[in-house]
Amino acid sequence: MVEGKISPIHGWAAMKAEGPVEPWSYVPRPLGPNDVEIQIQFCGICGSDLHTIDSGWGPTTYPAIVGHEIIGKVITKGEKVSNLDIGQTVGVGAQVFACLQKDCKACSIDMDPHCPKGVFTYNAKYSDGENAQGGYAEAVRVDANYVIPIPSNIEPQYAASLMCAGVTVFTPMIHNGVKKGDRVGVVGIGGLGHLALQYARALGCEVTAFSSSDNKKEECFKLGATRFINIKKEDDLAKAEKSLDHLFITSNARSNDYTQFSRWMDLRGKICLLALPENKIELNPGSLILGSVYFGGSLIGGINDLKSALEFASKHNIKPVIEKLPMEKVNEGIQRVRDGKVRYRVVLEN
Amino acid sequence: MVEGKISPIHGWAAMKAEGPVEPWSYVPRPLGPNDVEIQIQFCGICGSDLHTIDSGWGPTTYPAIVGHEIIGKVITKGEKVSNLDIGQTVGVGAQVFACLQKDCKACSIDMDPHCPKGVFTYNAKYSDGENAQGGYAEAVRVDANYVIPIPSNIEPQYAASLMCAGVTVFTPMIHNGVKKGDRVGVVGIGGLGHLALQYARALGCEVTAFSSSDNKKEECFKLGATRFINIKKEDDLAKAEKSLDHLFITSNARSNDYTQFSRWMDLRGKICLLALPENKIELNPGSLILGSVYFGGSLIGGINDLKSALEFASKHNIKPVIEKLPMEKVNEGIQRVRDGKVRYRVVLEN
Repeated sequence: MVEGKISPIHGWAAMKAEGPVEPWSYVPRPLGPNDVEIQIQFCGICGSDLHTIDSGWGPTTYPAIVGHEIIGKVITKGEKVSNLDIGQTVGVGAQVFACLQKDCKACSIDMDPHCPKGVFTYNAKYSDGENAQGGYAEAVRVDANYVIPIPSNIEPQYAASLMCAGVTVFTPMIHNGVKKGDRVGVVGIGGLGHLALQYARALGCEVTAFSSSDNKKEECFKLGATRFINIKKEDDLAKAEKSLDHLFITSNARSNDYTQFSRWMDLRGKICLLALPENKIELNPGSLILGSVYFGGSLIGGINDLKSALEFASKHNIKPVIEKLPMEKVNEGIQRVRDGKVRYRVVLEN
Repeated sequence: MVEGKISPIHGWAAMKAEGPVEPWSYVPRPLGPNDVEIQIQFCGICGSDLHTIDSGWGPTTYPAIVGHEIIGKVITKGEKVSNLDIGQTVGVGAQVFACLQKDCKACSIDMDPHCPKGVFTYNAKYSDGENAQGGYAEAVRVDANYVIPIPSNIEPQYAASLMCAGVTVFTPMIHNGVKKGDRVGVVGIGGLGHLALQYARALGCEVTAFSSSDNKKEECFKLGATRFINIKKEDDLAKAEKSLDHLFITSNARSNDYTQFSRWMDLRGKICLLALPENKIELNPGSLILGSVYFGGSLIGGINDLKSALEFASKHNIKPVIEKLPMEKVNEGIQRVRDGKVRYRVVLEN
């Protein structure tokens, strides 16, 4: 571990849409009194990284170092940072700043990712005009409030995927009141989905994995599924009808018509979208009214959700299944995500 | 008041899609031990009546006597009916039977309108094969569980509209947790909407009326609105952005794209559809995810909801604004509804 500051910070940046990431360095903004600098050990590759590299959700400001499943050690801290120690293993998720004031509607209800002053980990600007840069790098400098200590029984390489994928699936489970005995479905068994199976099972739910690939079946059962439905098989799908209390959609559907999902819901069922399709979705309104079904979505999770997701994972031994690659093979990792080959999360290692 | 049974029952039936209703009579099914016969005094005209007359939600079985906002007096009761007296003023809403068993998922959670054995008030069949016929008639014979005593301080003519329109707006307010101080929007100020304003205000909410017609503005304020937005005025609409916790949509929108509504919602806002568009609706998924907004719907209300809606109306002096017409002018009433001229509910009187 280095002690002190790293400047410039070397990383791998997207230079243009759909291109590879390339070595690039930047001088970080001055260390503020509430800032922390982290030497990065691991960083997961999230689907959002690819959308950003590709300008898929709108124009990206290049060069952009993406990556928001960051694990590392504190190497420097500002004078006001009292709750973190040099050398401590910490994580950073998809957000690096929010106002956290009581008069902020979002922050006051633990929805700090929606804070009007919030700054995401990359492709975002701090109020001083500096660009935020992410975790495909040797270091990152962020606000201490968004630096989360990692529970000692979670190995750092496994903690990475919890910082975004983990908290993203756990947060709506808690806010939507998922509880023991509930029937929970998970669509898309990938980075988010394979953690959703584990979290839902640990909450005591009956868990259905929906996948288009039978070859994930055995693994789904190991991860916590109590039922597996191959969405390409009509017979299987018929069994899904009205069989769920909650559904978490972690991957984009083939069609824009999402009515099918509402048919799987029992009375007062809740559907939560965790993947953001680039097109509008269609719904048959009768499929909502005739079962009091609600369809919504969730973004990531706030600081308190992140702490809860880590604590819960620590207590229930929730552990991502990862493919570890050295940081310099980042483009290989990105390509594996693009090809849908990853089981289930790539973690880059410095 | 007649005492005894009326047979055949004379009423006004739809004979074919989009035609007028015509005098027609039927012999009611035998009075079962748990049945009650009601001599009808008043019956409201609901939008659902017109959809059914027109086969708009699927083929209607003609002849069909519609009408499910029924108020009248008990004239006969089966031997097992102990909680209702001859001569008592009672109401019947949109449903006349459900199993009400504990092992029924729907009935066990007060969602009896979704009971698999449920029978709606018209255009439905009882398990014995008989067609259910509604309230544009001199009498109706129904299961006693669905015959609701009317609180003594509600005049019968005003109770009618509460039996469907009232309970339909009040039920999702209660189930969705609408509470004092919440910011509630109501789209469409008609039969349902004008009651939604009153219920929401009586719950202690800040209430916004959304209408395309400025000439309803003053009346909306009298009914309980604390803000009025003309949806045809861009300036007005801009103020709606992120300003609501709950939204109740009581009329069909001009476009199939419902994204606009999600933009009006603050964090964790809930949109409830109470009008059933005949086409699919479109939503921008980002507008849900980026605010944890949920979009769903609600049908009518169960027995317990109906009792609550009447009690609450009795306590808070909630009173529909009605146009009373003699039963024989039923086609004139229907035409006024078709033309969107009613302020705000037609009630037919025998």
